[in-house]
Amino acid sequence: MQQKTLTVGLGERAYNIIIGADLVDRAGDMLGPIAANRHIIIVSDKTVAALHLDRLTAGLKPTARKIDHFAVAAGETSKSMQVLARLLDDILAVGVDRSILLVAFGGGVVGDLAGFAAASLLRGVDFVQIPTSLLAQVDSSVGGKTGVNAAAGKNLIGAFYQPKAVLADTSLLASLPPRELRAGYAEVIKYGLLGDATFFDWLEFNRTAVLALDPDAIMHAIYTSCLAKARIVEADEREAGKRALLNLGHTFAHAFEAEAGYNGSLLHGEAVAAGMALAFELSADLGFCKAADVAQCKAHLRAVGLPAGQAGLGAGNAPASQLIKHMKHDKKMRDGRMYFILVRAIGDAFVSGDVPPDAVEKLLQRGEHGV
Amino acid sequence: MQQKTLTVGLGERAYNIIIGADLVDRAGDMLGPIAANRHIIIVSDKTVAALHLDRLTAGLKPTARKIDHFAVAAGETSKSMQVLARLLDDILAVGVDRSILLVAFGGGVVGDLAGFAAASLLRGVDFVQIPTSLLAQVDSSVGGKTGVNAAAGKNLIGAFYQPKAVLADTSLLASLPPRELRAGYAEVIKYGLLGDATFFDWLEFNRTAVLALDPDAIMHAIYTSCLAKARIVEADEREAGKRALLNLGHTFAHAFEAEAGYNGSLLHGEAVAAGMALAFELSADLGFCKAADVAQCKAHLRAVGLPAGQAGLGAGNAPASQLIKHMKHDKKMRDGRMYFILVRAIGDAFVSGDVPPDAVEKLLQRGEHGV
Repeated sequence: MQQKTLTVGLGERAYNIIIGADLVDRAGDMLGPIAANRHIIIVSDKTVAALHLDRLTAGLKPTARKIDHFAVAAGETSKSMQVLARLLDDILAVGVDRSILLVAFGGGVVGDLAGFAAASLLRGVDFVQIPTSLLAQVDSSVGGKTGVNAAAGKNLIGAFYQPKAVLADTSLLASLPPRELRAGYAEVIKYGLLGDATFFDWLEFNRTAVLALDPDAIMHAIYTSCLAKARIVEADEREAGKRALLNLGHTFAHAFEAEAGYNGSLLHGEAVAAGMALAFELSADLGFCKAADVAQCKAHLRAVGLPAGQAGLGAGNAPASQLIKHMKHDKKMRDGRMYFILVRAIGDAFVSGDVPPDAVEKLLQRGEHGV
Repeated sequence: MQQKTLTVGLGERAYNIIIGADLVDRAGDMLGPIAANRHIIIVSDKTVAALHLDRLTAGLKPTARKIDHFAVAAGETSKSMQVLARLLDDILAVGVDRSILLVAFGGGVVGDLAGFAAASLLRGVDFVQIPTSLLAQVDSSVGGKTGVNAAAGKNLIGAFYQPKAVLADTSLLASLPPRELRAGYAEVIKYGLLGDATFFDWLEFNRTAVLALDPDAIMHAIYTSCLAKARIVEADEREAGKRALLNLGHTFAHAFEAEAGYNGSLLHGEAVAAGMALAFELSADLGFCKAADVAQCKAHLRAVGLPAGQAGLGAGNAPASQLIKHMKHDKKMRDGRMYFILVRAIGDAFVSGDVPPDAVEKLLQRGEHGV
């Protein structure tokens, strides 16, 4: 029952992330006073509920005053204002007040949707994240970004709203399809690429153990990722500066996802992997980093079965002009300028608002032709 | 061009409320750096837009980089998740980033809806309130409560989100129907009844001037109301304690409104007036305040044409049991208990979680028979 705990230090909004195996079976103990004697509302999706709800319910039963459960349809389409409105009406219909505890139990979609539901319900109720995918454990459940998609793009509606705790139970990952596990791994490797060359080196040696869910290896990978994200979020909770580094690869990724259409054909982590490879290529094109770093980044992505550029994606074949149009709708735009996360080397990323549009176009045109 | 300014002191979320005549014509000057060179999105309703949009647009034009405008249908039905989703999609469709300024230009409905839209759009953009009704100028535009209604009741979905400024332009009130002006006055008198006997006495002498929109009288009434609310919100931004005093009469009011059905047949201020009269009666029933205070409160309400109890309301004729059922759905419930704001005298309110349910039932049954 080994586990690791880290604190996201955000003053009165500080909270703990606990990482380890079989945490959901001990969820009541793990959450302590956060869950004790409360009316708990679990929000999950139908896939997660079928696989894991019994374990979580049994883990919370000894401590909860009452437990209700709502499951949305699995998949990105649930991250909508329509599903949010129905979920909130459903929760309100059981009779709730501000003393409830909402539990977001699922992958990134459920975490973002349920987190925004918690932020909006009665103008804000307490919630905890119990992420069930690797992606959610290392990324979307940490840092308080919640929200849904709009007609104009992903995550354009939401709130910055911190959970009271995060339980990252590594035992839940065993039920993930290998493709989803790999997609989550893309966000793990991101922390090495953007700010921690030592972690990248560790992953070079341990990627197989991590993806095989070796207990020590996966715990270390998740702990290191969450710690990196926590330190960045502490420095910049509302994404005014440094937090943008977490978007390494994401300007490209969002364009690919917009082009693919959020129908499950392209996973977020896959788009991010391709996007990170492009961010390295762009950095090399602009003279910021060495070709050897680009090659090492791309080789690592390929070795774990992730796309290392546009060529690996259906959506990557779209015309450069079309992809750039998507980028211009990205909310990381400010005052009409596009921002990119570039790198000086593996483990050394920075934000740039000065990338010449030509360079991006040329890079994407090169990709169009599958080079 | 006399005007008064007060500051709502909420640390990094502090903002000014400016009260005076013809402020919209000088909106750019009044807002200064808050509006300068920004893409401004005005959200109003069709009634307000027809009456006042030209003035506001002219007032903002010298300072804004670009102005867009969206008008929802007038009335409470626009305070819904459906209208919010459409409004956000419409705003996103014109191409916006986090540097925009949203202007909520309308009554309480527009302020609550547009405020929540600002809180949720791109996880939060700046907004200012330019309230056009007396109710919104003295109550709903101050304090950062934003939100929409749910199937289960009013204001059950939303956010605490502070504006960057409030402009309360008294010249806009001249276009209000007399009934709406009176309903807004109910919230003015509330500040006297809950915490300021001197202000109540002033209103006893000046109510006619206030309702006739005498410039000095209406400015003083709004300034005093906003100052009272600001001091309470400063002490308790997220309604953990003292802020509940602002709900004097509201537990009853929300029950009447739920019963009436939000179709415009019962205005919020009318429901609050009746609710305040009942809060005084309940306080007297429980031995907290003198019958003379109840009589003075009710006489003042009647004198300005506001209901002074259930008898004045269609919804007031509902069975007591039905009204109590509505109250139990109120979000001011905590851990299953009903909270009431009671009074020891005019100008001296307090929160009680110990009101015997019998006392409420008896009071409402008395009202059922029109006594």
